[in-house]
Amino acid sequence: MDNFTFCSPTRYVLGRGVEARTGELVREMGCRKVLVVYGGGSARRSGLLGRVEESLTAVGVEFVEMGGVQPNPTDPLVREGIEIVRREGVDGLLPVGGGSVIDTAKAIAAGALYDGDFWDFFCGKAVVGKALPIGVVLTIPAAGSEGSGNSVITRQSDLRKISIRTDFWLCPKFAVMNPELTFTLPAEQTAAGVADMMSHIMERYFSTTEGVETTDRVAEGVLLAIITEAPRVMAEPGNYDARANIMWAGTLAHNGVCGCGRREDWASHGLEHELSALYGVTHGAGLAVMFPAWMEYMAGKRPFKIAQYARRVFGVDIADDREAALEGVRRLRDFFRSLGLPVTIAELGIENPDIDTLVTRFHENKGIPAGAYYPLQPEDTRTIYTSVIK
Amino acid sequence: MDNFTFCSPTRYVLGRGVEARTGELVREMGCRKVLVVYGGGSARRSGLLGRVEESLTAVGVEFVEMGGVQPNPTDPLVREGIEIVRREGVDGLLPVGGGSVIDTAKAIAAGALYDGDFWDFFCGKAVVGKALPIGVVLTIPAAGSEGSGNSVITRQSDLRKISIRTDFWLCPKFAVMNPELTFTLPAEQTAAGVADMMSHIMERYFSTTEGVETTDRVAEGVLLAIITEAPRVMAEPGNYDARANIMWAGTLAHNGVCGCGRREDWASHGLEHELSALYGVTHGAGLAVMFPAWMEYMAGKRPFKIAQYARRVFGVDIADDREAALEGVRRLRDFFRSLGLPVTIAELGIENPDIDTLVTRFHENKGIPAGAYYPLQPEDTRTIYTSVIK
Repeated sequence: MDNFTFCSPTRYVLGRGVEARTGELVREMGCRKVLVVYGGGSARRSGLLGRVEESLTAVGVEFVEMGGVQPNPTDPLVREGIEIVRREGVDGLLPVGGGSVIDTAKAIAAGALYDGDFWDFFCGKAVVGKALPIGVVLTIPAAGSEGSGNSVITRQSDLRKISIRTDFWLCPKFAVMNPELTFTLPAEQTAAGVADMMSHIMERYFSTTEGVETTDRVAEGVLLAIITEAPRVMAEPGNYDARANIMWAGTLAHNGVCGCGRREDWASHGLEHELSALYGVTHGAGLAVMFPAWMEYMAGKRPFKIAQYARRVFGVDIADDREAALEGVRRLRDFFRSLGLPVTIAELGIENPDIDTLVTRFHENKGIPAGAYYPLQPEDTRTIYTSVIK
Repeated sequence: MDNFTFCSPTRYVLGRGVEARTGELVREMGCRKVLVVYGGGSARRSGLLGRVEESLTAVGVEFVEMGGVQPNPTDPLVREGIEIVRREGVDGLLPVGGGSVIDTAKAIAAGALYDGDFWDFFCGKAVVGKALPIGVVLTIPAAGSEGSGNSVITRQSDLRKISIRTDFWLCPKFAVMNPELTFTLPAEQTAAGVADMMSHIMERYFSTTEGVETTDRVAEGVLLAIITEAPRVMAEPGNYDARANIMWAGTLAHNGVCGCGRREDWASHGLEHELSALYGVTHGAGLAVMFPAWMEYMAGKRPFKIAQYARRVFGVDIADDREAALEGVRRLRDFFRSLGLPVTIAELGIENPDIDTLVTRFHENKGIPAGAYYPLQPEDTRTIYTSVIK
């Protein structure tokens, strides 16, 4: 086991009707005027924004709004948010939505207190050393951004999609999580969220660090819960307990507890990020394609941890590591298919993917070699992309 | 699933040599003079106290010391600590030890800022509303106090052993956790710690709340890790990874993550607390006796969750719930025995236990009925105690 530091400072408030407590929680984090960040119109049409803003008004917290965040959020809206914060004297961020909305709010929270351009944090020119406090009202369980110090933003000019991680500054102070708000999520978004949260665990799980049984077992436990509950939420979108279990699993998948004490991989996320950046695919759907592709390649290169996953998570009963790993990949793909997810690039709607550009950009962003479990050279990366063209 | 709030604000710093960072962490929590609380002389003889105090001096943090905390810590030393804090102008607590040392420091941290007697918090006359900040150097993985807002103190005058729980004020700001410090723990203390941490999970796991698959699977995961690693630490006390896994499991067992979204039981802890208070037995050893006794009784009254535990944690393959539960209890007792733990009151060294007094005091402290999974009446409690006299 490697030395590690773990802290999960976010106060998670999960349950029916908990969005009514948003105002009180914003006041507890010491804010008097917040920027409410949201995505499309559904948060308003559903009445959620109204209820949240009513709870702010009830405790005397002022607010301004900024809507329009899109999936794979980009830099222009972050700059717009920073301007609003400065102009309006805002002292806190309140994203109401999923990962894209939360990540946009995080970038605004850091950028508003920084003299230069916020992209400096993403291109490595600066490190986040302060940020406005952030509280979250979560509506999409997937990205785990409600419990992480991470933010992922795409630069519009060159479609570079970059993830930053901070231990402290970008961790939300609270996350209001009402599973009822997810009853009306479209099936494909629910399924993509499941692939996203499973991937967050698997990026941490596939590690060469030995002697991490406690972290392994916790990670497997969250995966087992997701595999049990995901078919339930697909079949019964209004099943409260199933929705609640998926929502909580999505948080534990990414708050760091599944990675304690080991070197993590994150190559599959990088492989997917290039698909999202170039072709605008949904992140979770892209992961359902790229993660099994990466695992299948690993079965031939370094099968032992893929095999342990196959045995403990999917109950594969095969002694040979390579064969067990390959059977685990088959079952994972079957599971993704059963949720209606794509497992090839063609099924993502991309007919002639530009493999050269994908490979080049992946290594530009992740270096050569890339990943930790089995460091990828460009020829490895090419084989992985090519294996799932159709 | 019930509505819940979860926050784990403690910064866990786990690894080789991490006690050298204590001074820096104390400074980060804003303290200039701390009370170092410890137990017997082993912390000094081993050189640990010296290294910790050297790290304080290196960053300009002053300290005073108070040793002599005993297992099942009592109120007089808490009052002595409160006096020292006030007299010396101490602004933070630094317990170096296990649960008894940490719980004593927590009671001092709350009592020092309270006008009345600190016992008011324990007898229900007052609620902790502020406390001095606490940082921990952990030497015994067992009680989980390094990651909880709880404190357990026994009043010497009438041997009442009371546990209090706060969401925030008594949670340590940091916990320094070096598994190497546990290499020299006596075998019986290691084993008692294992029983203690398993019990913390099981008190949360045995619940009638349905629809908590994610929390169930996390709890089972930590139990599975403990069951794998405990025999290793017994056989090889200097196995770093095994010690590290046990240490981290002990924290996750009690930081609340294994209880999210459900009503917890805690009757078995109450049954054990009376044995500790009357006969001074080691808490973990008492739990190895009383928890299986409670479970065996439950197999006849409300077997379903005991049966799920038997199947998922001990791999019992029996369809009937009662029979599966009973087999699970047998395997748990065998596991405890394999670690050298007692499983009867006689094996605790108590030849003629005063069952009347145990039953009376248990219900005085826990009410009638007591516990949540299956509320105990005095006749239930009597049967449970009697079943494990020898």
